[in-house]
Amino acid sequence: MTPPDARKIRRTMPTHEHKTSAPLRITEVGPRDGLQNEPGAVSMQSKIAFVNALSQTGVKEIEVGAFVSPQAVPQMADTEDVFRKIERRAGVIYSALVPNERGLARAFTAGAQKISVFTAASDTFTQHNINASIEESISRFRPVVAGAQAAGLPVRAYVSTSIYCPYEGRVEPSRVVEVCDRLILIGIREISLGETIGKAAPNDVRRVLDAVLRHVKIDQLSLHFHDTYGMAIANAVMAWEEYGITGFDSSAGGLGGCPYAPGASGNVATEDLVYAFKASGGKVDVDEEKIVEAARGIARVLMHPLSSRLSRALKDTAHPVEPGAP
Amino acid sequence: MTPPDARKIRRTMPTHEHKTSAPLRITEVGPRDGLQNEPGAVSMQSKIAFVNALSQTGVKEIEVGAFVSPQAVPQMADTEDVFRKIERRAGVIYSALVPNERGLARAFTAGAQKISVFTAASDTFTQHNINASIEESISRFRPVVAGAQAAGLPVRAYVSTSIYCPYEGRVEPSRVVEVCDRLILIGIREISLGETIGKAAPNDVRRVLDAVLRHVKIDQLSLHFHDTYGMAIANAVMAWEEYGITGFDSSAGGLGGCPYAPGASGNVATEDLVYAFKASGGKVDVDEEKIVEAARGIARVLMHPLSSRLSRALKDTAHPVEPGAP
Repeated sequence: MTPPDARKIRRTMPTHEHKTSAPLRITEVGPRDGLQNEPGAVSMQSKIAFVNALSQTGVKEIEVGAFVSPQAVPQMADTEDVFRKIERRAGVIYSALVPNERGLARAFTAGAQKISVFTAASDTFTQHNINASIEESISRFRPVVAGAQAAGLPVRAYVSTSIYCPYEGRVEPSRVVEVCDRLILIGIREISLGETIGKAAPNDVRRVLDAVLRHVKIDQLSLHFHDTYGMAIANAVMAWEEYGITGFDSSAGGLGGCPYAPGASGNVATEDLVYAFKASGGKVDVDEEKIVEAARGIARVLMHPLSSRLSRALKDTAHPVEPGAP
Repeated sequence: MTPPDARKIRRTMPTHEHKTSAPLRITEVGPRDGLQNEPGAVSMQSKIAFVNALSQTGVKEIEVGAFVSPQAVPQMADTEDVFRKIERRAGVIYSALVPNERGLARAFTAGAQKISVFTAASDTFTQHNINASIEESISRFRPVVAGAQAAGLPVRAYVSTSIYCPYEGRVEPSRVVEVCDRLILIGIREISLGETIGKAAPNDVRRVLDAVLRHVKIDQLSLHFHDTYGMAIANAVMAWEEYGITGFDSSAGGLGGCPYAPGASGNVATEDLVYAFKASGGKVDVDEEKIVEAARGIARVLMHPLSSRLSRALKDTAHPVEPGAP
């Protein structure tokens, strides 16, 4: 039956073989990155219930909130109270975003087990976002990193716009490498590269990984994709399959969209990411259906629909296929 | 700055290099596969407007409707009228699904420029779907294929459940190959492999492509992904990057979801697929924003939101990034 002139398959990558058999490391950022821009009030009780529900899903790290200025980010003003009242589950790390030493003091008081600092790979973005150059942003959080590490708190650093900047366009991988090098120099041992606007394709991700993985250890790297243009799963699966990246940030329900465009996708949804890795043969000790349940809980408060594929697919499991063909 | 013990990158696939530089071939199935299961009435005028709008987007092939039993699929009962009244654009192929010789006669009368027949790789699925075994389904449409080809009409064959069957679970690639061989034997020169329930990951797709591409010429193959679990773009980009597959089916707006679960994703959205290929460096002569416009037109009639990422992302281009960091 084989047509004699069937084209030769010239594949170079072996099927069924992955770069790593290490388990995936999912950092759940929904309570922080997912909620920080929500325009409507979200009660402390709702946030606590959300974090508690997430604690039951198998995720090992939850970014609970941010110790930032309540004027700048009102949605995060009650992070201390949330930390105080959540039920901490053994084996789960509860972390917080911290921009400065005042935030670090609050994180200590609240009992955050890890902190995150943030910069970007585009000066225009940091100027717009935090009114500082990249270098100034690093100088600002340098004492935060030192203080946290002196107290034994692990620190992760976010590098936003690591592929595309909404103001500058494509960001050169060499620029990302420079920022990573600076972060490593000040003692950072965990870096999360943010694809902030969700425009990147796998080849864009390859370009930055080819450069960055010569400078950052693979198990100290996480990738933080937004699913705005539907590319997040393709990028994440590629990064895991081809490079063996195991660290990924995500947000239950895909929370974190732009508040000016309700329904617009924000962070890649944890449940979609977990589904994709499990379907691809990865080890992920997270229950994606429990993630959907946690996301639905907070979605009832937010009054807008979830953007994740799984939250829709799981709506009606009695009808897994549409009738008709094909 | 390079940590001396940074892991070696052992990649086997070259970055920035694709298997093919041939243009992508998008088959727009929205008017047929996207609408066939819509529970509410869709007027003929709306369908005509939808096809006419799609004709302006750059897609080269549009599946306009189906010449099936109006009792079985009432939504397709007016396909003849739709064919009669659309404005045909030169260079665009207007095709129709045809299950039997009676349907073929209607397709001739309507002036369809191509027909599609359908079977599956799972007997349980064909039994549920069309009350026939795979072999019986092929026997049924064999005279249709012969008749169409005698009249010079190209024929494509859909093979549903080519990776997962909702009843049988995982389908063996060898089973898909057997069906493809049977189709080639009766003269079929274009096969569309359907991933009907949207559960497959790239590695599942690799398994079937590794087998099928030894039997089907790559430029006679299309892949038909559903985005139910958010895997469609990852699968499509992989199939194009690693195998050089250029034929893909999709539906404007991601129409085609299960009518029992409103909002559930159906076919992969044409605009998301086009975006993904363009972002990845592929040649696609389709305007994804015009696809979104066409989909919005029909969505106003359907009274349910579109599921595509791009239709959401394009809602508010004035705010491409959420404020706050990272």
